[in-house]
Amino acid sequence: TVGINDDVTGTSLPIDEKIDAAPAGAICCKFYGLGSDGTVGANKNSIKIIGDHTDKYAQAYFAYDSKKSGGITISHLRFGDKPIQSSYLIDSADFIACHNPSYVLRYDMLSDAKDGSIFLLNSIWTPEEMDEKLPAEMKRVIASKKLRFYTIDAQAIAAKIGLGNRTNTVMQAAFFKLANVIPYEDAEKYMKDAIKYTYGKKGDAVVNMNCAAIDNAISGLVEVKYPADWAKATTGAAPIPLADDDYFLKVINPILAQKGDELPVSAFNADGSVPTGTTKFEKRGVAVAVPQWIKDNCIQCNKCSIVCPHATIRPVLKTAEELKDKPAGFETKPAIGFKGYEYRMQVSPYDCLGCKSCVNVCPAKEKALVMKPIDEMIAAEAANWDYAASLSDTSATYNKSTVKGSQFSRPLFEFSGACAGCGETPYVKLITQLFGDRMVVANATGCSSIYGGSAPTCPYTKNEKGHGPAWANSLFEDNAEFGYGMNLAYKQRRDLLAAQIEKLEEMFAEWPEGKAACREWLDNKDDAEGSKIASEKLLAAIESCKDCGCDADALEKEIYKNKDCLVKKSIWIFGGDGWAYDIGYGGLDHVIAMGEDVNILVLDTEVYSNTGGQASKSTPTGAVAKFAAAGKAVKKKDLGMMAMSYGYVYVAQVSMGANDAQCVKAIAEAEAYKGPSIIIAYAPCINHGIKMENSMLEMKKAVDCGYWQLYRYNPDLALKGENAFILDSKEPTGDFKEFILGETRYASLRKTHPDVADKLFDANEAQAKARLEGYKRLAGKE
Amino acid sequence: TVGINDDVTGTSLPIDEKIDAAPAGAICCKFYGLGSDGTVGANKNSIKIIGDHTDKYAQAYFAYDSKKSGGITISHLRFGDKPIQSSYLIDSADFIACHNPSYVLRYDMLSDAKDGSIFLLNSIWTPEEMDEKLPAEMKRVIASKKLRFYTIDAQAIAAKIGLGNRTNTVMQAAFFKLANVIPYEDAEKYMKDAIKYTYGKKGDAVVNMNCAAIDNAISGLVEVKYPADWAKATTGAAPIPLADDDYFLKVINPILAQKGDELPVSAFNADGSVPTGTTKFEKRGVAVAVPQWIKDNCIQCNKCSIVCPHATIRPVLKTAEELKDKPAGFETKPAIGFKGYEYRMQVSPYDCLGCKSCVNVCPAKEKALVMKPIDEMIAAEAANWDYAASLSDTSATYNKSTVKGSQFSRPLFEFSGACAGCGETPYVKLITQLFGDRMVVANATGCSSIYGGSAPTCPYTKNEKGHGPAWANSLFEDNAEFGYGMNLAYKQRRDLLAAQIEKLEEMFAEWPEGKAACREWLDNKDDAEGSKIASEKLLAAIESCKDCGCDADALEKEIYKNKDCLVKKSIWIFGGDGWAYDIGYGGLDHVIAMGEDVNILVLDTEVYSNTGGQASKSTPTGAVAKFAAAGKAVKKKDLGMMAMSYGYVYVAQVSMGANDAQCVKAIAEAEAYKGPSIIIAYAPCINHGIKMENSMLEMKKAVDCGYWQLYRYNPDLALKGENAFILDSKEPTGDFKEFILGETRYASLRKTHPDVADKLFDANEAQAKARLEGYKRLAGKE
Repeated sequence: TVGINDDVTGTSLPIDEKIDAAPAGAICCKFYGLGSDGTVGANKNSIKIIGDHTDKYAQAYFAYDSKKSGGITISHLRFGDKPIQSSYLIDSADFIACHNPSYVLRYDMLSDAKDGSIFLLNSIWTPEEMDEKLPAEMKRVIASKKLRFYTIDAQAIAAKIGLGNRTNTVMQAAFFKLANVIPYEDAEKYMKDAIKYTYGKKGDAVVNMNCAAIDNAISGLVEVKYPADWAKATTGAAPIPLADDDYFLKVINPILAQKGDELPVSAFNADGSVPTGTTKFEKRGVAVAVPQWIKDNCIQCNKCSIVCPHATIRPVLKTAEELKDKPAGFETKPAIGFKGYEYRMQVSPYDCLGCKSCVNVCPAKEKALVMKPIDEMIAAEAANWDYAASLSDTSATYNKSTVKGSQFSRPLFEFSGACAGCGETPYVKLITQLFGDRMVVANATGCSSIYGGSAPTCPYTKNEKGHGPAWANSLFEDNAEFGYGMNLAYKQRRDLLAAQIEKLEEMFAEWPEGKAACREWLDNKDDAEGSKIASEKLLAAIESCKDCGCDADALEKEIYKNKDCLVKKSIWIFGGDGWAYDIGYGGLDHVIAMGEDVNILVLDTEVYSNTGGQASKSTPTGAVAKFAAAGKAVKKKDLGMMAMSYGYVYVAQVSMGANDAQCVKAIAEAEAYKGPSIIIAYAPCINHGIKMENSMLEMKKAVDCGYWQLYRYNPDLALKGENAFILDSKEPTGDFKEFILGETRYASLRKTHPDVADKLFDANEAQAKARLEGYKRLAGKE
Repeated sequence: TVGINDDVTGTSLPIDEKIDAAPAGAICCKFYGLGSDGTVGANKNSIKIIGDHTDKYAQAYFAYDSKKSGGITISHLRFGDKPIQSSYLIDSADFIACHNPSYVLRYDMLSDAKDGSIFLLNSIWTPEEMDEKLPAEMKRVIASKKLRFYTIDAQAIAAKIGLGNRTNTVMQAAFFKLANVIPYEDAEKYMKDAIKYTYGKKGDAVVNMNCAAIDNAISGLVEVKYPADWAKATTGAAPIPLADDDYFLKVINPILAQKGDELPVSAFNADGSVPTGTTKFEKRGVAVAVPQWIKDNCIQCNKCSIVCPHATIRPVLKTAEELKDKPAGFETKPAIGFKGYEYRMQVSPYDCLGCKSCVNVCPAKEKALVMKPIDEMIAAEAANWDYAASLSDTSATYNKSTVKGSQFSRPLFEFSGACAGCGETPYVKLITQLFGDRMVVANATGCSSIYGGSAPTCPYTKNEKGHGPAWANSLFEDNAEFGYGMNLAYKQRRDLLAAQIEKLEEMFAEWPEGKAACREWLDNKDDAEGSKIASEKLLAAIESCKDCGCDADALEKEIYKNKDCLVKKSIWIFGGDGWAYDIGYGGLDHVIAMGEDVNILVLDTEVYSNTGGQASKSTPTGAVAKFAAAGKAVKKKDLGMMAMSYGYVYVAQVSMGANDAQCVKAIAEAEAYKGPSIIIAYAPCINHGIKMENSMLEMKKAVDCGYWQLYRYNPDLALKGENAFILDSKEPTGDFKEFILGETRYASLRKTHPDVADKLFDANEAQAKARLEGYKRLAGKE
């Protein structure tokens, strides 16, 4: 009698199945939660309790958005004495719970409430404050439907008994108390039994804390006696202001507000394309604390910026004159190395996910960043961020291919739905800073395709000239080929363009400036910066002549139509290790073998991250993963070595937190190499079982202990008679075992398989040593 | 108005489309030819002539069987003044030509002839000889349908004017003369124009010879004036005797006789399986000359046998007593190294394809094999072969894992449809000699799947105990996975069996012999030979007890049901380089990475052979192939090096003609290694543009000049603290350029792309040298 449809894709039911056909007497409940607050887990538990211990029929469906963390979840639960024969989303609820107070401003949760039904709100607000904290619209619905309105400060209760932020047990108890699906005394017993079963292994303390949460929940429940005139309320909390953007208003906002099912097909572009640069509209504000810049401590290294997974901390480099309209709190200091310029590090409190990565890498003697509560930071910095974002690019001259320089360049990948502290997105962001304005990306399925382009917003964006990455995701298994095809298409189109411009050069025989513009483009067409400059000149020449009536007019129009091909493209193929080592490897191997100028970035988390941690051929010996519960038995595949066997493929292994300069250098070299390139980037992941605020520190430890090696293999060096292989990491000094045992993916094996754990760890270490020996041989350092 | 459906799969039209619906006045012509005699080419040319030069509508369809060479082709041509709107196979012909005289005994060509239509037979027979040479059935049809019957000795005409065996032009002229689709004078002009166009590049001599063939054809045409009483003929050439085998009579023979479309579905096994060991029924007799054994010259090395692509030359090793019933011509000599045994090398003239490979590798001072005309050899040796085939396996003791010893073991792969001189099949055959009786094969799509198992016959066969390879072919792209799945299935079944036999051992506690049989099997289950012996003992024990009524009866029956799993299986995954380097590489890589005990054989022709010579990642720099018409630009992928990077994969490169002993050794080691193994075998191919009789000599040259390296990488050696890598080929001595220029795939580049040819050849040589240096480093020989 229990059916749970657990669907992580967030697909909703078709509209026509949303019939209001609950069997008479069925109780329909709906819960709005945050991905990380345990709402879904508590509800799965609740429905099991009712299904297992009563004769009631039960059904549940869980809807998720596609954010990797901090997204919304909506649980639909139904219970009844008669069979529940059709599945549908609840739109006539007896009980609605909101587990996150910020949702009162974001979602219309109550239009599905039945008259006289129950609304439970988790908040820190007293009943008296509700009049001011709730928006007028919500108050009108509560009063006109005569809802029974309860509030509970679950956060305070959980914190008091030592559960920290984990409010799910408190909210579950409140649900059973109010919804009264079964007698509360029974529910209480079942909840406590479930706690013992679930947390028994973790010891009595955890069990007792959770049981205490149940006991305390009930006493914390407060009914809000609202005045009847809420039915006509016109005042209350101000709604979040909506961005003044057509696509945002037409498509993004309805989907964000969970009204996407109501959009007609005609709301979308017929070709399936969507605008980029739209995550900036989300302003999620999901961090608890965000970093505050301490000006006086800052040494202006820009390391906080390069490691930021969400592009929410950025340096400002402007002259005082350029900043003359700055807001009052927009403090700056003289820029080091840029005479006449002012420097500032600007945080976006609404977009920051609060991972603390920036704070942890800050090398200043006294940290130049400290975490502060989000409300305080919104008050202090939201306007400053908006001002900084409105500024044009810096007029200073800097070297992009350095750690510091790269960060003065605008990231063209920002505010993605990746996890706080994600080990992958700093690489993606950095690449957009270096080449984003002429970049085309084919993205394999995986985390990078989810945070890279989930409806309704896109984190890839454009610079002030309107140039930015074009991005698409195809199948898991064909992504290298997909990118290769993009490359071939551009190659063909640019070859045609070159033939046309050669012809134009002849037609301009009598016009020296025009002829020179053609020649300059022809001579620089395959050079990134050269083609940019030449393209601008050529376009200027064509524009000055285009409709003059001369013989060249028609040809000029043809060329103008294809002006998107004038600048040399930077073709990128992104994916994780599940794609690169396993499912897409056949294609990846084929594409690098073909010898064309494409660039591949492998975000190596050593596990299938997006689908929840299955072992890949990148998973090292002894790591615990799905399909390798007893520790992976065989060794990690050496993808880089296999790619190097071609001899004409640029190959690098990088680890940003270990050596950011080597990372920037490798990426710049890979892109510049006029053949296939592959960069294998070490990327810590929540699946590793580490504190994600330490992503960058884990990257460093991995290299320090010899777990991960840094190298670059550049075929161009071989052409000059030099050794193509350069080993960039130093002789290991850190403790290998200490490193791996600092990650749950390894440490847990000692608990679950103590008989084999150390044998596998030893093998892992021996394999890493052997790999290093091989690299040293290649480097001639043996 | 010309449509040519060229379909190499040999698929026929559905029965219900075979409507007799040629527009009134359309001329329908049907031609029976040999795959290699140019019939199809001449017919394509004829239909183009008519389509291009007249107002007639024309349509053609070409049906092929699946033999790689020497198969039958049937051309269906139609011409008319009205549009030809539906496609069908001709079953009411105005003109039928038989280009191969042996077909009069094999195929019913005339049941589709219209009354009074023309039948043209290419033969060496005079009109007077026809009464004796044609079978009675054919004579009855000719006379009762009043056919106009012509004969021509195309072979003699072609030979006389210097065209050798190439009879297609002669037969084309005869067709135009007799069928009279267009005035012959016009046809003659068009044919000659086409000859100039086609052969112009080859020089005047070739053009003139072909033109002469046309001039001579007409004068060679003879009408056969047959007696009316042929209508009741009962005498004539005896039909080929049919094998006394149910499956042959029910399925194979109708398909071989081109009557497969008439078979009902019920004729086939419902599970899709077919019996093995059925090529022996074909007795194709397509060789012109076959080898004769010169007893006195023979040094008994068995090299002729190991290189034979078709298993049609085999040593006999029997005592005089065992041979007491031998036929008169079955001469033998005392066996060297086997006291009391007699030795003989026996050829099968009907099954031999006459490639001459055996003759060319014979190392005797005076060749112990000479080529003789097939008729002579059939008369002398057919009965001897039948006698030799009827003998049981030798009772002598020999070491299978040597060149000589391996050949005393019966090949369990014989008489395949591979090309004469095929470079692949000797490897396949050798593997069946070593492990065939316990072998399971997953075969990738490619030549090896076509010659390995095309309907209606199967070259894999069984030994005298009824044991032989089980074989199947899945998709091109999943063959490694397919074989891996076979391995997993056996592993699971054998694990279950082991658990059952452990239980049986306990139940046999009171029966020492039974208990010992269980223990012996449990101790030897993963040892090839050990498990064979133990399985026999265990089966004997079970059989002696099975129905005795004791407690173990039920368990014994369970075990008995799975007795096919008792002997350790030898799991093989076969495929070409198109599969292993390209289309199936992702799966191959995954399977070797998994660490299971499977064996992979890569038949490396450095090109997609089956589909006609497309470049693969195995194709070396400078080789000409489809998609690489200007010579392959990038270097050959080093598949072995990539496989070695895992460290736990056995890897070998072999080249039988260069070092047969190393080849046998590598295969034996690969199979014995209890983990994944991959053998990369150099295999010359018709696509290389060499004389296929020299396959083995090319293999030797390739190694001698350093084009191909021989090595073995055995992880077991590393466990013993030795170097896992052994370089088996010597320092190159041959001339690299001379070698590659001896093959058309390279030499032709000098003609078509003289500007780049030598640059690419130099690169090829430099790459081979670099590869060798790498291997030497691995071998510690630097």
